[in-house]
Amino acid sequence: MSEADTVSLVLFSGTDDKLNAAAILAAGASAMGRRVNVLLQYWALDAFRADRILKDHGAAAEASAEGRAAMERQGGQHWSETFQQAKQIGEVSIHACSHSMEMLGLVMEDLDPLVDGQEGVASFFLDTSGSLTFI
Amino acid sequence: MSEADTVSLVLFSGTDDKLNAAAILAAGASAMGRRVNVLLQYWALDAFRADRILKDHGAAAEASAEGRAAMERQGGQHWSETFQQAKQIGEVSIHACSHSMEMLGLVMEDLDPLVDGQEGVASFFLDTSGSLTFI
Amino acid sequence: MSEADTVSLVLFSGTDDKLNAAAILAAGASAMGRRVNVLLQYWALDAFRADRILKDHGAAAEASAEGRAAMERQGGQHWSETFQQAKQIGEVSIHACSHSMEMLGLVMEDLDPLVDGQEGVASFFLDTSGSLTFI
Repeated sequence: MSEADTVSLVLFSGTDDKLNAAAILAAGASAMGRRVNVLLQYWALDAFRADRILKDHGAAAEASAEGRAAMERQGGQHWSETFQQAKQIGEVSIHACSHSMEMLGLVMEDLDPLVDGQEGVASFFLDTSGSLTFI
Repeated sequence: MSEADTVSLVLFSGTDDKLNAAAILAAGASAMGRRVNVLLQYWALDAFRADRILKDHGAAAEASAEGRAAMERQGGQHWSETFQQAKQIGEVSIHACSHSMEMLGLVMEDLDPLVDGQEGVASFFLDTSGSLTFI
Repeated sequence: MSEADTVSLVLFSGTDDKLNAAAILAAGASAMGRRVNVLLQYWALDAFRADRILKDHGAAAEASAEGRAAMERQGGQHWSETFQQAKQIGEVSIHACSHSMEMLGLVMEDLDPLVDGQEGVASFFLDTSGSLTFI
């Protein structure tokens, strides 16, 4: 597997619809044998706090009442479970962005165990020779 | 043309400003000889419903009144026409994400003919060896 | 350095949180020796107007009151300074998208000197053989 096969995801948004979309992409890439590097920034990092990861994080501002109802009707597994599965399937790492950790006043103990560690953006780019996706 | 020349776009947002930006990127990539794979999720998929594609889908929450007025003043062609042109120029495929189809309770007949079919995320990654862009 | 090392960022959003995230990614990529091409569209282009670049551009709609307070508390340097540093560190170009310039009724003199020029999307793709990131 070449470095170009790596899928690098920068998660910025912390709403359940985007995090679900992100988790599905991570699981799909992992299932196809791609290495996945995730960096959590801003509101996505906030959503990975251990004490809040399962709470309702809402949907993007554009979601209609009908759309939100469809999300609730479907239910299905939580995005954190999908990330968990993606990790079980393949090589998926999830890191908190140091800059956002500092901004939100967080330490590693505040985060869900899904998060493997924290790193700066320059360090993240060491592993990012393929595609870079911002969600 | 190598696989790395493929531009893979995951469309999540369904507002007219983002769909217009996406259509312009697809047409630009297509004009430069790049193959373009589009996957429609969530609110972007909803915007491709045959009975709504031409209706007003609003703008991102951050758009100011001044910005929205500029969008209306410019007018110009609809993003669905730009996607149509992108398909005429080059190799552009548009697929609905199976997961979102199920969530929104849609079948292929509900979608605009611009949509070539539906597929799962793992299948989408079979064709995604180059860049992956989330819009 | 191969063309695949280029990081192409299409900036669409004009809120301070996303522009800050974008500036940090540009600086990180630049610090790691990657070439960075930035294309400004829609509300991100509006945020680079010379007479507004330093004003408050708000945060994404999803930001909580707590999150906005954390942004203000941290303070730190403005994203325009981070882009300036990214340019000093390495090879970073910033162009305005011609389509958005026309829509917003702008000419180059309206923009901050950080912006190197304007170009169409097709021209942008001439330099975009690696990853394409939409923010």
